[in-house]
Amino acid sequence: MDPSEFRRHGHALVEWIADYLSGSERYPVLPRVVPGEVRRALPEHGPEAGERFDEIFADFERILVPALTHWNHPGFFAYFPATTSASGVLAEFLSAALNQQAMLWRTSPAATELEEVSLAWLRGLLGLPSAFEGVIYDTASISSLHALAAARQAAVPDVRERGLVARSDIAPLRVYCSEHAHSSIDKAVLTLGLGQSSLRRIPVDAEHSLQSHALRAALDEDRRAGIRPVAVVATIGTTSTTAIDPVNAIADVCRDHRIWLHVDAAYAGVAAMLPECASYFAGWDRADSIVINPHKWLFTPFDLSAFYCRRMEVVREAFSLVPEYLKTLEASAGARNLMDTGIQLGRRFRSLKLWMILRHFGAARLRSILAEHIRLAHEFAARVDEHPDFERLAPVPFAVVCFRANPRALHLGAAELDLFNQRLLDAVNETGEVFLSHTRINGAFVIRIAIGHLRTTGAHTRRAWELLSQHTAALAIAS
Amino acid sequence: MDPSEFRRHGHALVEWIADYLSGSERYPVLPRVVPGEVRRALPEHGPEAGERFDEIFADFERILVPALTHWNHPGFFAYFPATTSASGVLAEFLSAALNQQAMLWRTSPAATELEEVSLAWLRGLLGLPSAFEGVIYDTASISSLHALAAARQAAVPDVRERGLVARSDIAPLRVYCSEHAHSSIDKAVLTLGLGQSSLRRIPVDAEHSLQSHALRAALDEDRRAGIRPVAVVATIGTTSTTAIDPVNAIADVCRDHRIWLHVDAAYAGVAAMLPECASYFAGWDRADSIVINPHKWLFTPFDLSAFYCRRMEVVREAFSLVPEYLKTLEASAGARNLMDTGIQLGRRFRSLKLWMILRHFGAARLRSILAEHIRLAHEFAARVDEHPDFERLAPVPFAVVCFRANPRALHLGAAELDLFNQRLLDAVNETGEVFLSHTRINGAFVIRIAIGHLRTTGAHTRRAWELLSQHTAALAIAS
Repeated sequence: MDPSEFRRHGHALVEWIADYLSGSERYPVLPRVVPGEVRRALPEHGPEAGERFDEIFADFERILVPALTHWNHPGFFAYFPATTSASGVLAEFLSAALNQQAMLWRTSPAATELEEVSLAWLRGLLGLPSAFEGVIYDTASISSLHALAAARQAAVPDVRERGLVARSDIAPLRVYCSEHAHSSIDKAVLTLGLGQSSLRRIPVDAEHSLQSHALRAALDEDRRAGIRPVAVVATIGTTSTTAIDPVNAIADVCRDHRIWLHVDAAYAGVAAMLPECASYFAGWDRADSIVINPHKWLFTPFDLSAFYCRRMEVVREAFSLVPEYLKTLEASAGARNLMDTGIQLGRRFRSLKLWMILRHFGAARLRSILAEHIRLAHEFAARVDEHPDFERLAPVPFAVVCFRANPRALHLGAAELDLFNQRLLDAVNETGEVFLSHTRINGAFVIRIAIGHLRTTGAHTRRAWELLSQHTAALAIAS
Repeated sequence: MDPSEFRRHGHALVEWIADYLSGSERYPVLPRVVPGEVRRALPEHGPEAGERFDEIFADFERILVPALTHWNHPGFFAYFPATTSASGVLAEFLSAALNQQAMLWRTSPAATELEEVSLAWLRGLLGLPSAFEGVIYDTASISSLHALAAARQAAVPDVRERGLVARSDIAPLRVYCSEHAHSSIDKAVLTLGLGQSSLRRIPVDAEHSLQSHALRAALDEDRRAGIRPVAVVATIGTTSTTAIDPVNAIADVCRDHRIWLHVDAAYAGVAAMLPECASYFAGWDRADSIVINPHKWLFTPFDLSAFYCRRMEVVREAFSLVPEYLKTLEASAGARNLMDTGIQLGRRFRSLKLWMILRHFGAARLRSILAEHIRLAHEFAARVDEHPDFERLAPVPFAVVCFRANPRALHLGAAELDLFNQRLLDAVNETGEVFLSHTRINGAFVIRIAIGHLRTTGAHTRRAWELLSQHTAALAIAS
């Protein structure tokens, strides 16, 4: 593609994206396609001769756009909404063009140092002390994997060289988390060779928070049984209900047992910048490591997971490994090589978008958007609480409401209630105006509304409520 | 940013990027900054109030651009060059705007199915059979980690549940690779809890290829010692010298020992589309898994690592784990959920760029560009071979030449030779016209020229040769 073609297609794309970002509401949030539809619409083999970009783009519009799930739709209330922002999209455009590799300082001084600077800015906003050194990974799954690898390294200093196999000198190792910890913690322990059975899930209280006394009892019990506790994962904002584990009390337990405390605040961490949320984060600055995902609730195009660690030297002990062809003089001159703190050698220029977003929005506006999302969630929760045919099933510390319909007149049993709510969720999602997802709490099917889109307003959450209450009434009549 | 602002800044960015991509030669390849320079130029805290995008962009140009290592400079000959292409950059722009999450089919049918389609196209180009199911990861480090995790799973089927610790029923496990295998293999075995000592490096022959008879002997020896072989990693195109391990002979050994064969073709894999390279890939279709990085030598903006596996069900056994909040009906309707084959839950819409690149270039043009890079490397190698003051230190199957200056008149000893070449490399890189990197072969300092940039022509490689020969002469006189 020559420069003039690039200009032409680039400008067309800018127009298309501007229309898309401001007009995503014209699409159904969930696409109306069936499995295999995209695959069948495309040829089995790529072309031998190159094709014009407009032809490719025409197929993109014709075949792919109808099969997109619109994460940028302000009616996207499923999972944790993850939306882009204009400044983030522009930064990614630039980053793709620059194609920096932030593995060594030398392979991109700009990306290396901007990662440090932008993570320091974010750390300041979140009120974390500078003892937390930061590094950017792709996902929270990888951040938590590094956290637990570091915990394993701290517990078994020669694990790097000798591994875990066929060693009579290592007691069974164990990691602790709440029943509601994210599946990435399971994936981390099984990847690290600890096995899923090494993950002990501690019971939660009525608000779905880990019970610290049960944690302490479990640790004591395990110690007596000859098991070696390695780490506790505390979650601030669980995926199901955004429950908050009591980090301060957990930090006491970790201190007493001298084990690693990892805080999974992938979703909710950014809310630490709100004074009104401060109590939820009490004690998180005592953690050994923390993960926060700006790509979840900070309008950062996917992917960017921020990992903060008080003991980054342990991560380096676990992973630093420099082959000859990557040795540089700068390493001795105090330059940081970010490849030393990770499994991945190749590293994208992700800090550019974080830096641009933090500057373009500014702290005040970021705080006000997050606060508004939380306000909308509380408003929605109040509607649930006031309606006789709905019930709320979890507290709402952040911007997720867990609830279900329970039409009084129907006197539904547990299984019927689940089915009713599954049907309600499907009916509401089929409108294309909104997309909500579900979870289960104590076995019961629960609908979740997660508010986090940059352009979601009260009009969207009210519309979600209208759809839910109307479809509940209609389904109740049909029952 | 409102849509009109986005349009304005977007259009300005298109112009800037068009100029950048076509004019990257006006920058020095390696920036002239010292560690800390970027950090010191930026404030300690982010702004409270939002800033205009043009202000941010002005700082980008003033502070960051002078600190970029220009991976898009046609004089970038270091490591493995990784360059973007215009169609890839446009695809990433679009991908950032769409912000698809390809974790579940439901969360992006388009991204899920396009991943399958584009990987099938690439597989066809490479001549691999359809028995190889594909998935896209971020980096080769992560691809190889999954390969070895699958090998571990195949060897110890209950490893997922029980882990590796405190088990008397598992023999010491071992992974085999050549002395020149990539550091990501070390990182994978240490991450997986096998320990670096479980990685047995097999000696290479004069062409730096793994000696298959030595591999067989090592396996036999280890079996006799009660060690359980788990996998062999064969490399097609090692990082130091692009050496080629004899995959067919290695596949025989793996078949006889019933162990996993992983082929690391992260760099050179794309060359399998060239008939003239077919012999280098003989037997790779017998592997259990293969990694190929389009972000290295297929003009794909970083990151995109293609992982092909004949036994993807083993990867699923190792990693599939679906929490309630991610359960969908489509899973039962035959839709593939890509989160099932990986550690990472979140997955970017990476297939879009691969699809656009395969279409926009077309197979014929991709083959001709790769062939031209190889031709330029051979031409460069011939210059080295003909010059009395230079010597070549490895065969050139692909587009990397390993060589050093050895001015006959100076009669340099081994240590002096190393120092001479280090100085030569520094001098040449300091010109800003080119950037080459080094490696060591049998302890000796070796300069590498890696040709892989989309816009590198014979003029650039000739200029690199001029600089090298001129600086050699100058240094020789100064000596």
